[in-house]
Amino acid sequence: MESPTPLTESDLLDLDAHWRALNYLAAGQIYLTGNPLLTEELRPEHIKPRLLGHWGTCPGLNLVYTHVNRVISTHGQEAVCVWGPGHGGPSVFAGAWLEGTYGELNPDVGRDAAGMGRLFRQFSFPGGVPSHAAPNVPGSFHEGGELGYSLAHAYGAALDNPDLLVACVIGDGEAETGPLAASWHANKFLDPAHDGAVLPILHLNGYKIANPTVLARLDEDELDALLRGYGHEPLYVTGSDPAQVHRDMAAAMDTALLRIHEAQRAAREGEERARPRWPMIVLRTPKGWTGPDEVDGAPVEGTWRAHQVPLSGVRDNPDHLRQLEGWLRSYAPGELFDGEGRPVDRVLACVPRGDRRLGSSPHANGGRLVRTLPLPDPEKYAVPVDKPGTRMHEPTRVLGGLLRDLMERTADRRDFRLFGPDETASNRLQDVYDATDKAWQAATEPTDEHLGRHGRVMEVLSEHLCQGWLEGYVLSGRHGLFSSYEAFAHIVSSMASQHVKWLQSARDIPWRVPVAGLNYLLTSHVWRQDHNGFSHQDPGFVDHVLNKDPHTVRVYLPPDANSLLCVADHVLRTKDVVNVVVAGKQPCFDWLDIGQARAHCARGAGIWEWAGTERPGSRPEVVLACAGDVPTQETLAAASLLRTHLPQLSVRVVNVVDMTRLQPDEEHPHGMTEREFEALLPHDVPVIFAYHGYPWLVHRLTYRRAVHPNLHVRGYKEMGTTTTPFDMVVTNDMDRYRLVMDVIDRVPGLAVRAAGVRQEMADVRQRHHAWIREHGTDLPEVEEWSWPGDGR
Amino acid sequence: MESPTPLTESDLLDLDAHWRALNYLAAGQIYLTGNPLLTEELRPEHIKPRLLGHWGTCPGLNLVYTHVNRVISTHGQEAVCVWGPGHGGPSVFAGAWLEGTYGELNPDVGRDAAGMGRLFRQFSFPGGVPSHAAPNVPGSFHEGGELGYSLAHAYGAALDNPDLLVACVIGDGEAETGPLAASWHANKFLDPAHDGAVLPILHLNGYKIANPTVLARLDEDELDALLRGYGHEPLYVTGSDPAQVHRDMAAAMDTALLRIHEAQRAAREGEERARPRWPMIVLRTPKGWTGPDEVDGAPVEGTWRAHQVPLSGVRDNPDHLRQLEGWLRSYAPGELFDGEGRPVDRVLACVPRGDRRLGSSPHANGGRLVRTLPLPDPEKYAVPVDKPGTRMHEPTRVLGGLLRDLMERTADRRDFRLFGPDETASNRLQDVYDATDKAWQAATEPTDEHLGRHGRVMEVLSEHLCQGWLEGYVLSGRHGLFSSYEAFAHIVSSMASQHVKWLQSARDIPWRVPVAGLNYLLTSHVWRQDHNGFSHQDPGFVDHVLNKDPHTVRVYLPPDANSLLCVADHVLRTKDVVNVVVAGKQPCFDWLDIGQARAHCARGAGIWEWAGTERPGSRPEVVLACAGDVPTQETLAAASLLRTHLPQLSVRVVNVVDMTRLQPDEEHPHGMTEREFEALLPHDVPVIFAYHGYPWLVHRLTYRRAVHPNLHVRGYKEMGTTTTPFDMVVTNDMDRYRLVMDVIDRVPGLAVRAAGVRQEMADVRQRHHAWIREHGTDLPEVEEWSWPGDGR
Repeated sequence: MESPTPLTESDLLDLDAHWRALNYLAAGQIYLTGNPLLTEELRPEHIKPRLLGHWGTCPGLNLVYTHVNRVISTHGQEAVCVWGPGHGGPSVFAGAWLEGTYGELNPDVGRDAAGMGRLFRQFSFPGGVPSHAAPNVPGSFHEGGELGYSLAHAYGAALDNPDLLVACVIGDGEAETGPLAASWHANKFLDPAHDGAVLPILHLNGYKIANPTVLARLDEDELDALLRGYGHEPLYVTGSDPAQVHRDMAAAMDTALLRIHEAQRAAREGEERARPRWPMIVLRTPKGWTGPDEVDGAPVEGTWRAHQVPLSGVRDNPDHLRQLEGWLRSYAPGELFDGEGRPVDRVLACVPRGDRRLGSSPHANGGRLVRTLPLPDPEKYAVPVDKPGTRMHEPTRVLGGLLRDLMERTADRRDFRLFGPDETASNRLQDVYDATDKAWQAATEPTDEHLGRHGRVMEVLSEHLCQGWLEGYVLSGRHGLFSSYEAFAHIVSSMASQHVKWLQSARDIPWRVPVAGLNYLLTSHVWRQDHNGFSHQDPGFVDHVLNKDPHTVRVYLPPDANSLLCVADHVLRTKDVVNVVVAGKQPCFDWLDIGQARAHCARGAGIWEWAGTERPGSRPEVVLACAGDVPTQETLAAASLLRTHLPQLSVRVVNVVDMTRLQPDEEHPHGMTEREFEALLPHDVPVIFAYHGYPWLVHRLTYRRAVHPNLHVRGYKEMGTTTTPFDMVVTNDMDRYRLVMDVIDRVPGLAVRAAGVRQEMADVRQRHHAWIREHGTDLPEVEEWSWPGDGR
Repeated sequence: MESPTPLTESDLLDLDAHWRALNYLAAGQIYLTGNPLLTEELRPEHIKPRLLGHWGTCPGLNLVYTHVNRVISTHGQEAVCVWGPGHGGPSVFAGAWLEGTYGELNPDVGRDAAGMGRLFRQFSFPGGVPSHAAPNVPGSFHEGGELGYSLAHAYGAALDNPDLLVACVIGDGEAETGPLAASWHANKFLDPAHDGAVLPILHLNGYKIANPTVLARLDEDELDALLRGYGHEPLYVTGSDPAQVHRDMAAAMDTALLRIHEAQRAAREGEERARPRWPMIVLRTPKGWTGPDEVDGAPVEGTWRAHQVPLSGVRDNPDHLRQLEGWLRSYAPGELFDGEGRPVDRVLACVPRGDRRLGSSPHANGGRLVRTLPLPDPEKYAVPVDKPGTRMHEPTRVLGGLLRDLMERTADRRDFRLFGPDETASNRLQDVYDATDKAWQAATEPTDEHLGRHGRVMEVLSEHLCQGWLEGYVLSGRHGLFSSYEAFAHIVSSMASQHVKWLQSARDIPWRVPVAGLNYLLTSHVWRQDHNGFSHQDPGFVDHVLNKDPHTVRVYLPPDANSLLCVADHVLRTKDVVNVVVAGKQPCFDWLDIGQARAHCARGAGIWEWAGTERPGSRPEVVLACAGDVPTQETLAAASLLRTHLPQLSVRVVNVVDMTRLQPDEEHPHGMTEREFEALLPHDVPVIFAYHGYPWLVHRLTYRRAVHPNLHVRGYKEMGTTTTPFDMVVTNDMDRYRLVMDVIDRVPGLAVRAAGVRQEMADVRQRHHAWIREHGTDLPEVEEWSWPGDGR
């Protein structure tokens, strides 16, 4: 068919009945704690003690719910919805309740009068459900509490889901945010052959909390130009007459579906075509549509006053109460529900069946679909290590081999992707291009490399898009890894918080099935910003993440290439967590062979006997602890200096891979017991800890430990610029010479005995400062250094 | 004039000479450490030991530098430039050196051969200058190390600068970021009457590090639609023939200026017109233009290979060395500089004079312009407090009065603005609308309120834009306050980091004059998300900020309305710092009268004698410490309970306003000495500390204090949902009853003696849990509580 068939009168009545029922159920959730079917006159005691909720956005969301239902039912289209507008909870709970999924998952909130009563009461009620499309909402994989990420999530879910339609309602408030504004261009990365479709529905109801929205106040031609400039063909649905809007919306949805299917058909049959100009819908309906027109003489419907609770005085103000009753009865609940509160047939006519229902789609409860990744054995990529610290590798480049093979093994399944802001090669993961391309649907030039229509490496210069895509991809049941410059992970700090909060909340919802871990590889890290300088130095993303739910967050700092392989192998198997892996891309000494790395990473922290001078059976006089590749290098160099200069000193070297091991076991599931901790870091021995990031993080993780008063931490302290790697560690007082000085300062009795050694160390640092200003390079003795593992 | 006059042949030669000189100087900075004028054959020892820098973007930036110079000189236009593309350092250092400002500010890098040599050598050299438009660059107020903020900064600088043109070069890589994508709509907030103009110059050189850019690969009509949809009239300059590009660029700049002046004239003469469609320029020139065409057989100019150092083997590869020499000589340095390395007249013909030079504009060194704000006396807005804890006020609403009057007092000066994402009224600051409007240039409706073309409250639903505007506004010499929901401050975590880094770096540059503090008011905070729930709970922005340079960051938690007034009065007077003020918008007990508040805030932390039971001359048995409005309320309630139930116990109450007071004085300039600290929190007395945010922050600030082992901190621990305020504190174990239990558990001997009281407290908490599930409200005994200050 070339143009859609108009709605019949009967279809129209069906759709309108469904929509009215949703509107009734949404308003009921905001107001009622009793008398859900209005079987009696509305009295103050039927009204909730605290009126919380946002009516303004609901009628529009309800309209979309109704019409997506219609498209699923009429065309057999598989679909999920992303509900961008904030506080849309009443609509989506209503939709799921009406289609039956809510009651199936929560049997005490079934599709009858008692269930309706509980549905109303639980909304925004202590111990009940929140006002957003939170994990409690069947069919949701996007909470929308923080605005900006709906469209990126929608694209993430559409990737590698060729039969799926992801309808995405974008509020015109959300459309002002940066992440949403960037997301429009995601259509340049969507493969019509292997991916599903995203149908953006820009809901111009005109207002935010207290202001008009920018997009709603553009001239029509300006808005049209903007949306075409974004690469879309806009279809407009405008009005406030329900019948007309239903007709136009049905036609727009059908037209959109036709265009989508045609673009997909062409691509899948191998026709050479330009990038599709995907359809989108602009839905312009009044804010708070069908709600109170005026309250206390001020206009409400169609203004920002409809944003939250339009009638706020209903418990005390009889006029408001009567107005509320009139409003609720305007939906004619008696025609929509039978005497037992069950929706009548007409209301349910558009509702799909079984897992085609929006609230029941497995794509919105991705754990139902996720499959274990066919991970290759890390051993295959391991670098040989006969003696620690004699050869160097770039850890991320070594990991690239494993990722390449994983890409190859998932070529048919297409359930693993890499995400990154234009940095996959810069981060040395380019071996993956042997197995797949970078996704790219825009124009190409002969000089381009590794760009392909069917690629599974997602590169765009927007951390927000990378994160949003990955979240959508993972929450819909697939796997991925986001590689980023360490400092710029802060750009998505807030998104990471929201994802952790989603996972934490979902854990308490029995029907939510665990999804794959969300994996960060933070590289190009703080110590190696040789030419990027100060603006690119920030190791604090880890601090941010560790403020969050300990059951959900994990932080790993593998010290070398083989341990990065083991950590990657681990995190790619995890479920329902956020893993932050920090690893360098620059050449780094190999310390552990793959067997040692596996054992060490499994423990998360351990003594490197071969690096210390501790005598068996005795206690160490000092512990050198380290976490991170550069701190490990400096620590082992310090250990080596100590062995040379103070051979009698009993030194223990401890390396930490999993930072949460430092926490008490009652605070983090990976935390060590006090006994385990004591065996590693005895309470009465000074510990010099070289840590990759801000030193106080180690204090905050260990403040309850008995050793804490003996703990002296070195790390990054916001000092640095464009300089050499060694100058960076000197500038931040984490260099090998400083660590040796710290040992001498802290071990009782050494201050006098080792005063000469201390002076010698201070002299080298002095020489360094002079040399680097003159030559711009490091002291030859540092450049030529290697850990003398062979001396042992 | 209606259309611009074409360039004369002589003008063209002048401009090209300037541009070639910049290209030469840019390439020289990347490569040369000797032989700066190529007076001898180029040899390996003339080449820097480490080749760092980004050639690709330089020729385009140089072109803009040349043509902005021309516009300033020819039309007497006042202008500054924002250089968006990352790593554009070589261009802007070159521009400032060539015009003479660099040498005036750094006399050893003067405009002669020796200075040129130092200019080259210092670039990306240890101890030298970084590769971005960092504070070291005269004329820069936008570093561009992290991409995304150029256009927002440009708009911030243009606000209230009616005669200023802010040219803003936007790289097509940066254009993919969210913040930049959102910034295009900033033109809906620019007042042609009172603000200056922003001229966006979208530089489509086509490539990022390793990929083509999205915007460069759109069809021409799609790009044109997009830019018109953004509200601009695009002017295109495309080509690779320098003469043609010079002619087109000059014409485009002149046309743009004509249109800008016409729009400004109309607005300033009071003509009623629609929002101007401001001009912008699309500059499409090859990446690495005029650099090596091919290297080792692979195309370079016009591809992503030109991004960084096009010839990387020059020290070891004689072919590369010869190619570099040919490239450098192609600019004919002998024609551009005289024998002493001084630029010839032709090169300097387009350069403006004095402070009109880009590197010398006071707008780009805002401290030169900043004036002390005419702050009203806080006392005028103070709420009367006869007895602590008897009446309540909404602190931010009280602050609104002061801000209103500040708005009024700056009505003519126009050097103070409020910024916020649609939340000024939600955050209870709406009194400011008595003095000014919300800035709005798009269409209006009769139902709109407080929207105005000349308003100085900036509301847009983008934290990125608010932050970017404020940064640009402050760095160009004005004042402002950004009010945000506390949780969503994380959206701009990374921007805040970069601003702190800017200030920290600027402090070491003698010619940078201090600018006004950047002020955050974080409200709608974690404890009062009654209907927004879990997604809106995050007090961690403070943790993030406190990881940064202690000389630049300040954190204040005023406990009530009067103390908020005092803190606001203070932060609005600060220079070169970032102030984070956390204060509630909900009714909160008044504890301090304005005199007490002033003294308490000046100390930053102190004993509230009236709240405790400490006997004069004796030592307390326990300290109840608190920071933040809700923790203060619970702590004083706990103190009240203790007074009733354990009247013999000697309790000290300490309140902390300035969190950095907790740090040792050697770690933060506001830090207390150990002696001061001991006087407040004695090392041998248990301290129960109720803190607004994540409890471990207090541990991290105090881990060196003697009292630390005795410190027990309560705070937010990522627990919470849609519930009542009191349930939130119970859920997070920070409620008054829990604090009393903590006291009993920690004070030696109390466990047995006060077992009954402890049980009573536990019982109330138990009753609370049952009650709230049933009623959805708090226990009446909690709701009716007030601090019995009158009992003392």
